[in-house]
This record gives sequence, C-alpha cells and structure tokens, in this order.
Amino acid sequence: MKVTRFGQKFARPSGIGLLMDDLAELLSSEREMLMLGGGNPGLVPAASDLYRAQLADIAQDPQRFQQIFGGYGAPGGNADFLQALARQFNQLYGWNLTERNIVLTNGSQNAFFLLFNLFGGLAPTTDTDSAAGHKDTGESAGRARILLPLTPEYIGYEDVSIDLPIFVSNRPLIDKLDDRTFKYRIDFDSLPDDPDINAICVSRPTNPTGNVITDAELARLDALATERGIPLIIDNAYGEPFPNIIHTKVSLHWHENIILSMSLSKLGLPAVRTGIVIAAEPLIELMTKMNSIINLTPVSIGPAMVTPLFESGQINDLCEKHIRPFYAAKVDRALQWFFDAMQGVPAYVHKPEGAIFLWCWFPDLPIDSLELYQRLKKRGVLVIPGNYFFPGLDADWKHCRECIRISYAMDDEVVRKGLKIIGEEVKRAYEKL
Amino acid sequence: MKVTRFGQKFARPSGIGLLMDDLAELLSSEREMLMLGGGNPGLVPAASDLYRAQLADIAQDPQRFQQIFGGYGAPGGNADFLQALARQFNQLYGWNLTERNIVLTNGSQNAFFLLFNLFGGLAPTTDTDSAAGHKDTGESAGRARILLPLTPEYIGYEDVSIDLPIFVSNRPLIDKLDDRTFKYRIDFDSLPDDPDINAICVSRPTNPTGNVITDAELARLDALATERGIPLIIDNAYGEPFPNIIHTKVSLHWHENIILSMSLSKLGLPAVRTGIVIAAEPLIELMTKMNSIINLTPVSIGPAMVTPLFESGQINDLCEKHIRPFYAAKVDRALQWFFDAMQGVPAYVHKPEGAIFLWCWFPDLPIDSLELYQRLKKRGVLVIPGNYFFPGLDADWKHCRECIRISYAMDDEVVRKGLKIIGEEVKRAYEKL
Repeated sequence: MKVTRFGQKFARPSGIGLLMDDLAELLSSEREMLMLGGGNPGLVPAASDLYRAQLADIAQDPQRFQQIFGGYGAPGGNADFLQALARQFNQLYGWNLTERNIVLTNGSQNAFFLLFNLFGGLAPTTDTDSAAGHKDTGESAGRARILLPLTPEYIGYEDVSIDLPIFVSNRPLIDKLDDRTFKYRIDFDSLPDDPDINAICVSRPTNPTGNVITDAELARLDALATERGIPLIIDNAYGEPFPNIIHTKVSLHWHENIILSMSLSKLGLPAVRTGIVIAAEPLIELMTKMNSIINLTPVSIGPAMVTPLFESGQINDLCEKHIRPFYAAKVDRALQWFFDAMQGVPAYVHKPEGAIFLWCWFPDLPIDSLELYQRLKKRGVLVIPGNYFFPGLDADWKHCRECIRISYAMDDEVVRKGLKIIGEEVKRAYEKL
Repeated sequence: MKVTRFGQKFARPSGIGLLMDDLAELLSSEREMLMLGGGNPGLVPAASDLYRAQLADIAQDPQRFQQIFGGYGAPGGNADFLQALARQFNQLYGWNLTERNIVLTNGSQNAFFLLFNLFGGLAPTTDTDSAAGHKDTGESAGRARILLPLTPEYIGYEDVSIDLPIFVSNRPLIDKLDDRTFKYRIDFDSLPDDPDINAICVSRPTNPTGNVITDAELARLDALATERGIPLIIDNAYGEPFPNIIHTKVSLHWHENIILSMSLSKLGLPAVRTGIVIAAEPLIELMTKMNSIINLTPVSIGPAMVTPLFESGQINDLCEKHIRPFYAAKVDRALQWFFDAMQGVPAYVHKPEGAIFLWCWFPDLPIDSLELYQRLKKRGVLVIPGNYFFPGLDADWKHCRECIRISYAMDDEVVRKGLKIIGEEVKRAYEKL
C-alpha cells in the first residue's frame, strides 16, 4: 500500500488519536476503568428525557421519520434548524443573522479541520507570482498560519493541518490566585506578529483548562484581528447560550469578522456529531461547498431532534435550569476531592470557570506527565497528559510536561475514586518512588 | 478573507455541488418540482417500520439511549456493529473478516474523499529524492493517480482531490442490445497503464448507469490490480448483500487487495450518513486515525439502529423480500414510461441492472445535456446532466453531453410525469425548437 503525502500525514501518532484510542479501549475492555480522560458529557436526566421524547415522537410518525431519516439533507444543514438558530441568537443578543450565516458540520472537530485548513497551510499563489512565471507547485506560495494567543489549547487542533505546521502560539502568563489555584492570561506583550498569520483562534471556555478569557482579553484579540484583516475564530463548544457550561459572567459578541463555533455535543448529544459555525456569508457558502464534496451533507438527526426545543425556547430553560447547575455542582465537589487528594502535594488547579475539566499542574513534577498518564492507566484511571495541549509551542517549556486534564463530568464516584488514585500517584512521583 | 489553496479548491463549481444545491432548492422551494435528480432512496414501508421500531425501543430505554447518544463512539465505529458486519460477510461469503477489517465513515462520499486522497495526489518523496537534497515542497514528489476503467462514473468522485487532478479514465465500449437499450463494457484494449496509477476504482452497480460490470470484467480488473500491486476499490453502495438493489446474477469477492465500500443509505437511511469500508488491516487502521483527526468519530446513530437487525439476520430478509422487489418493480414501470415518452425520439437507455437510475442517451442531441437540464428545470423536472459523470475524461467526446441521469426511486406519479415532460423536451430539442 503506497499512500500519498496526505495519507502519510495521518499515519503519525497524534494526541487526539491517543484520546480516541483510550475511549475505544474503554468501550471494548472487560476491565473497569475510571474514565476521567475523555470529553464525554455527563448524564443530565432532564436533557435525556427531552431528547427521548423527541425520538419517540419521530418513531411514531412515519411521515416525520421519512422526512428526517429517508432523504439527504441540504449540504449546509437543515433549513428549519438554521432558521431556529438564527432567531435564537438574534433574540438573545440582538445580532442580525440569517440562515446564510450558519453552516452545520459533522461535529466541532470537523468544523476545525475545515476552518484550520481554510486559513492555515499553503497561501494561494498571488498574481505577482504567476506573472513572475513561478511554477504552481506550492514552492512559490507563502505559508498561512493560525495564531493561538493562549496555550494550553484544545488537543484536537494539533494534527488537523494537511499541509505544513500551521500554528503559531504563545506561552501564557500564570497568575497564582492562592496556594492551590491559578489562572492563565494572554501575554499580549509577547504575542507573535508574524506577517503570515491568517487567523486567530481561541477556545472560550478553554478546553482543557476551564479558563474563560476575560471580555477585555477577547476585545483586544478582536481589535487585533480586525486591524490585521484576519478572522477571529472563537470555539464556543462549552459557552453560552448553549450548553452554557460557564460559571463566570462574561459576554458574547459576534460580527462579520468573527467565526463562532458551537456544538450539540455538550447538550448531551455527542454521538449525533453536529457542529455549528456562524460567520459571514462568503465563508458559510464556501464551507457548504466543502460539505458537499467531503460529506455530501452533514448528519441531520441531531438537528431534527432539537429543532422543536430551539423553536419553543425549551433549550434555554434546559441549559439554565439543568445543564449549567449540574456541572456547577459537579465542579464544586470535584474541586473539594482534588484538594483532599492533593494534601501534602504542591498541586495547583486552574480556576474552573467553564467547560467540564480540571486542569492540574504539578510544578517541578519529577516525571513527565506522559509517564504519569501511563502509571495512572496501570492503576485503572484514564486522564489526558498535558503534553498534547500546547499546539504550536516549542517543547522546551517544562510546564507543558507538568499538567494533566481530568474530566469531572462522569459519575461522582468515578471522579472521587479517580482523584484519590491520582493524588496517590502524584505523591509517589514527587517522592521519587 | 484570504483562504489557502485547499480552500480555493472547494470554491470552484462542482457537479456534486450542483446536485446538492438542487436538493437544497427543492427542500426550501414553494414550487412543486418533480425530483428525478437526487439519489434519495424510495420509501419502502417494511424498512421504515423496522427502523421506527428500533428508534422507539431506544427512546423508551434511558440506559440504551445514553449509551447510543450520550457518548463519543470509537473512532473506527461501534464495535458491536463492526462485529455483526464481519459475521454476516463471513457467513454469506466465507470470508475471514474481523472487526479490524472494517471502518465506518460519515457516509460513502466521506469514504471516497479519504480513499481517493490516500491513493491519489502527491506521492510521498522517496528516500532517493531526500538523499539528492530535493526540498520537501511537493515538486520533487511524483503524482499518484486513480484509474477509473469505465466511465460514466459517480458524480461525487470528480472533485474530491485536494491536490492535483487524480483521475485517469477511459471511454467505454457501447454494446447496443436492441434499438432502445445498450450496455457499457470496459475497453481493456485501450485501458491506460500509466506508471503513476496507484489504485483502480469502479462502482458496481454503477451510479449513474445502472450497469453491473460482469464477473469476467471484474476478475480482469482484480488481476490487473494484483499484478501491479495496487488496490482495487469497489464502490458497492447499491450491491449485495445490502441493499442488494441488483437485478442480475453476479458474485461478490473480497481479499486483502480489495477495498469494498458499502453504505446504509440505500437501506433507506441516507440521513444517518454511515459509510462502511472493508479492507486489509493497515488501511483500516489508517482510516481510523483519519476519522479521529477529521471527525473524532463517525456518527453512531445509524449503526445503533441497525445492529440488532444485522445480528438477527432480519436485514437479509428485508433486502431480499422488500427492498430488491420494490426497486425491481419500479424499474420495470419506469422503463415502460420511458419507452412511452420517447416514441418518435432516437433515445436509448442503459440496461438497468442495478442501482436506482435510468441513464438515458440521446445520440446526436442538438443541445448539450446541460442545456436540457436547464430546460427541464424550468418545466419543473430535476435531473442530472450527464456531463458530470465522466471524471478524468477529456471533454471532447460528444457522448458525454448527450446523456442524463434520472432517478426512479420516487413516487410512481413523480417518475411518470417527469419522464413524460422529459420526452417532450427531448423531442423539442431534436426538432430544434
């Protein structure tokens, strides 16, 4: 089997591959593992009840079933859902969206595969190049890159580029809030300003850290993007208005230079693989064409299940009264268990302002976090080593190897037991056992 | 918005884009159109009943619902479904598959996006190139191409290449079977044998023609692929054992040099976007990694709905007793309406041996089939112009512009009325009105 360069690229080990392999191993394993590694949402009974009622309705109604399951949908996504989304955002935030500002993708990961390869990689050959007689081989083309102004950033970004390495990123400033918690801040003074930067991207709330960059930070990034004439991509998978897993008061803005990415996954529906991208019309049109060629059409089952909930406004109630409180209570308990487990260990946790993770930092940990991950796996606890969350950053910063990401979305007993074992293993590591 | 070369590539008009735009227009249009253009399957009540019963079961059972909808699946696809598939193929054909020979994708189109870019595009730089000090820009790399031994071929193949044009293809031989029907044959004497051909691909039954290449033809392609050490890709979206929309007696083989592509779409579930690829383990492993990076995981709703039907063997009954007879009856009626509508017109139709289309050929038609498509659209009939079904073929063969593809999967009245109008417009065209 002789594969192309495109194929070779995917053959390399990747962080997201490791994460998904862990998930697969867990799904097929006989052994009971404490799964704190994945990004699976928790089970919120009120959400499950609503979705199951929708599914039952569809199952009962042959005509509705046929409409939803029996035909290829539109390549940009179901029009009713796009309209319901546009209405919701316009009502909540006073934006002026139409369905031509929204496209669906097969999940957020797929949205970022498309977006990052659209804005990062080989820049098009310019007219000047052509006039100079350069051959169209990519050699004369410039490079286009994506600025991640703050790392750690999402593990799934790292490997999506089909061409060259595309990320330019930056170390954060670390504010210690007390002797157990800290918060990352964007270091604007050291922000790279390479001329080939073609987009800026930030996840907010940040996966893996639970950080929510402040309104002031976001406004500076927005101004910078506008000034440079490049888009600002905001990965809002955990943010408002849905699923709204965000425990701090910030605001959400959109205008034509912002690309806002959302998802149905953290509403409790990761298996339906529905990503949502909100942007200026030309980009939406282009991504719709990409859907046609790469996928024919995005999956329409999730949108069909939730469209009535968006149209009735029930989705806002669900997020406000159930999903957000569910995770708010979970994070409080998880933090307490973390503090309990880390007694006598110099462990820090990022202030969990949103998303579903604890980002733990063990300063001067004598072992690499990859080694910690392996030791924990042997003890039956799956976490994600921090190493994979610094896309585009040079590997010589030891902080990258002192952190792990822990999900607190699972059953309390799993989280509690897992944190206890993590505490034991971290202590062992510090004691060089 | 400055997009990369990758992005520019998708901005071009494409055949599959046209098809999907037509579908979208139809879905949102007030006007009643006769839709003979898409690839939507027909409504087979027995199939719909089975799927709805599964959905109702899932909706009733909170635990099962959570298992299916509430978590990210494995990146290669749900293990239970993969195992059920392997068992079925092994039982029916005596193959020796395990779940490590099968990967799911987000539909067949996505499978071919991955496969064609894996085997077609920029060949990897060889060690010799590197030793000679060539820069890693793609210029020193060879090209890898896909041979389509028979055109017309599927419209969705044409635009998937992210790099260079990848198809090498061939005109067919045309056997006139009587004064109304014909069959394409592979012209082995003129088959291109460029050294950069890196895979062979054929759809069987063929979309758009309804052709089923003979066992002898397939055996020759298989031998050729094996001899050259390149894979043979068989697009079996309409073939046996499911959906089994095939009205001629042929056999299905698989071995490690064959890549077999299947789908749940023509079982009546296109919206679940589930493609199935059966191949040697190294390719399945690589495609699983691609899933992780591009999509995290394929959509698991469709597999969850049909796994019990595969495990119980009901799916074979469904195909044998309902789906195949449904289309067999439809094609007989459609052919008769075609012959009625084409009285006095020198129209031919490809012998419909499988799939869900009539491929109509109007020799020496005074207008291009694109113009015919436009005229029909004005009359409220959507078809697909034949021009888009000759990927990789030079455009100077007039046969490419004398054909249209018509779906007969829709309601009989739609097909009958549509064919009548097509007959009128073709007659007008021949009479140069």
